[in-house]
Amino acid sequence: MYAERIAGLRSSAIRDILKLMSRPGIISFAGGLPAPELFPIKEIGDAAAKVLSRHGSSALQYSITEGLIPLREKIIKKLDPDSKYLSLENIIITQGSQQGLDLISKLFLDKGDTVFTETPSYLGALQSFQLFQANIFAIPSDEKGIQTEELGKKLKTHRPGLLYLMPNFQNPTGASIPMDRRYRLVEIAGKHDFMLIEDDPYGELIFEGEKLPSLFSLAQSKNFIYMSSFSKTIAPGFRVACVIADKEIIKKFAIVKQGTDLHTNTFGQYIVNEYLENGNYHEHINLLRETYKVRRDCMLSAMEKYFPKSAKWNKPAGGMFIWAILQEGYDAREILMRCIEKNVAFVPGQEFFPDGSGKNTMRLNFSNATAENIEEGIRRIGEVLVKTSPQI
Amino acid sequence: MYAERIAGLRSSAIRDILKLMSRPGIISFAGGLPAPELFPIKEIGDAAAKVLSRHGSSALQYSITEGLIPLREKIIKKLDPDSKYLSLENIIITQGSQQGLDLISKLFLDKGDTVFTETPSYLGALQSFQLFQANIFAIPSDEKGIQTEELGKKLKTHRPGLLYLMPNFQNPTGASIPMDRRYRLVEIAGKHDFMLIEDDPYGELIFEGEKLPSLFSLAQSKNFIYMSSFSKTIAPGFRVACVIADKEIIKKFAIVKQGTDLHTNTFGQYIVNEYLENGNYHEHINLLRETYKVRRDCMLSAMEKYFPKSAKWNKPAGGMFIWAILQEGYDAREILMRCIEKNVAFVPGQEFFPDGSGKNTMRLNFSNATAENIEEGIRRIGEVLVKTSPQI
Repeated sequence: MYAERIAGLRSSAIRDILKLMSRPGIISFAGGLPAPELFPIKEIGDAAAKVLSRHGSSALQYSITEGLIPLREKIIKKLDPDSKYLSLENIIITQGSQQGLDLISKLFLDKGDTVFTETPSYLGALQSFQLFQANIFAIPSDEKGIQTEELGKKLKTHRPGLLYLMPNFQNPTGASIPMDRRYRLVEIAGKHDFMLIEDDPYGELIFEGEKLPSLFSLAQSKNFIYMSSFSKTIAPGFRVACVIADKEIIKKFAIVKQGTDLHTNTFGQYIVNEYLENGNYHEHINLLRETYKVRRDCMLSAMEKYFPKSAKWNKPAGGMFIWAILQEGYDAREILMRCIEKNVAFVPGQEFFPDGSGKNTMRLNFSNATAENIEEGIRRIGEVLVKTSPQI
Repeated sequence: MYAERIAGLRSSAIRDILKLMSRPGIISFAGGLPAPELFPIKEIGDAAAKVLSRHGSSALQYSITEGLIPLREKIIKKLDPDSKYLSLENIIITQGSQQGLDLISKLFLDKGDTVFTETPSYLGALQSFQLFQANIFAIPSDEKGIQTEELGKKLKTHRPGLLYLMPNFQNPTGASIPMDRRYRLVEIAGKHDFMLIEDDPYGELIFEGEKLPSLFSLAQSKNFIYMSSFSKTIAPGFRVACVIADKEIIKKFAIVKQGTDLHTNTFGQYIVNEYLENGNYHEHINLLRETYKVRRDCMLSAMEKYFPKSAKWNKPAGGMFIWAILQEGYDAREILMRCIEKNVAFVPGQEFFPDGSGKNTMRLNFSNATAENIEEGIRRIGEVLVKTSPQI
């Protein structure tokens, strides 16, 4: 009855865990939710009211597949203020970045095609590629993201259709790719014919250091696709994101999106556009940066205090996640089960490894908990870790 | 570079025509847009404000893939007031019905699978099935929808994975399937193992006669899937629709939708839910029925007045479309080109025939034009028809 692609599919552990999260009083470092108490609710209410009074009929009607023109213009203007390499024809609005991935899979993946990813990589991307029956091939990564030497080696024996990367504050590791590797990636991509997919939902959430240029802007090549989203910077509930690519490729995106959902919800696009024009977007981003930085620091110092000395973790310069590597022999899934009994949760890192490794890793989200809960939640996880012996 | 499924894709003529529609002053019977002047803008504004003040954090946050629980409950309650055969586990909210079709294709179609459709059939469905490389097989239809005898015959030699139908006020023909054929369809489906997909976006827009029971409610079988939408009854801009199916199938829908776009936009779901609860939904539906009925009648009498005697058309009992069959030898695409010069448009019917026939047919939308424009637009089309000789 079902299509072949459905056979191997299962609900993600994250999704099942998120269902558990409805337990009252649980402290959750699982999920990747922005802090809801920071949503600019008043400004969004103002934007919604203004949109309805000025553009009611258009904002509630069917609209063009590529997306609202003034919204597309604003995004292009932000990415390329001097119109050096981008115009309106280079962008399509998608129903969240997850839809961007769905459309990319539809456009570029035949059954059995190879996709290269970082190790670990974003779960939603892996799900999308799997749904289109791709073979996912994990390229080793370190604290600076994908290892370009390893990538070069693997390209000698494999011909991927896509290379999927999240260069800024990666989900799940929080790692960012430094400039030297970015140049190297552009160079490598120039010598091969895969599409390089650059997913950048967290780039704006930078706490320190300088924002690095996108691979897309460095390469300015038709083999690069850039994805951005307002889910982390305004609110996820609108499902408004975008894909930036070569004009001819965007035309194909539009045809495929037409058959997929006609267009992204019009009202959400109008509200995001109005909020960008007359809301407090820049202040709001600054508020997010400051608040999340405090939460990150709070989590780092709690981990220092409560986690066993054998555990290691990174200090991400932005984004929403800390990545912890426990001593070999720990099973983070088992730890999670014990943690849930103590009303605290995280995501076992194994979920993010296409090859099923990473048993002793965990992803900790710091954006969606107060400083007080971070201290208390990390204390509880630390207690479980200290009481559990690694099985070697 | 592109996947195999992209090779045959082209932008739909409707889409290209809709782009032409931006010409100022054009009278358009193309598209399938609801009347924007009837959108309940004030009530939607009230609903949006209330949602933000009462549920701001949840309404802007990520939400569960299956959709907002109170909204799902309301839809179930409406379809099955005594909870005889439906519960919360039988429904998933989709990003418009077009996404319902995308998810159905993902779930049930392997490359080369056969899909049976009416002739003509909804273009968006054809596009979705084509994107998943199905073989579309057109079953003859008449003014009462699909011909069940023909269906029975074709089932002797073909094994379709899906049978796709729009039993109420079909797009493009406006035809509805009468009770005897509905019973016959349920009977036929019971003897085969295809999934019967019942798409019902227009069922509420009934002008006269009684609303007939859905195939889904008649069959109550796990081989039936029912789709409904708020695009025509509230507003398309929210992209809020739903799929109703067997519980186990809905679980699969949720896994696939998770990889497709995570979930339908939260804010739109909250607003639709609030509007259903405290808005003027029932009055609004009555207003739509009355207004569209007047427009249908106006179009019918104008056609009587201005169309050549050789043309035939139906009198739909609801929905948004009149279907006209011109004398053999007319090419509706050519007629359209001449009509556009006179600032009036419709959709050539050939678009809706999977087998490319129907050259002499046209779809006329009456929901999105005033009585005055309908009279004038039909007059202009009639003038073109009378002046054009059919090429035999």
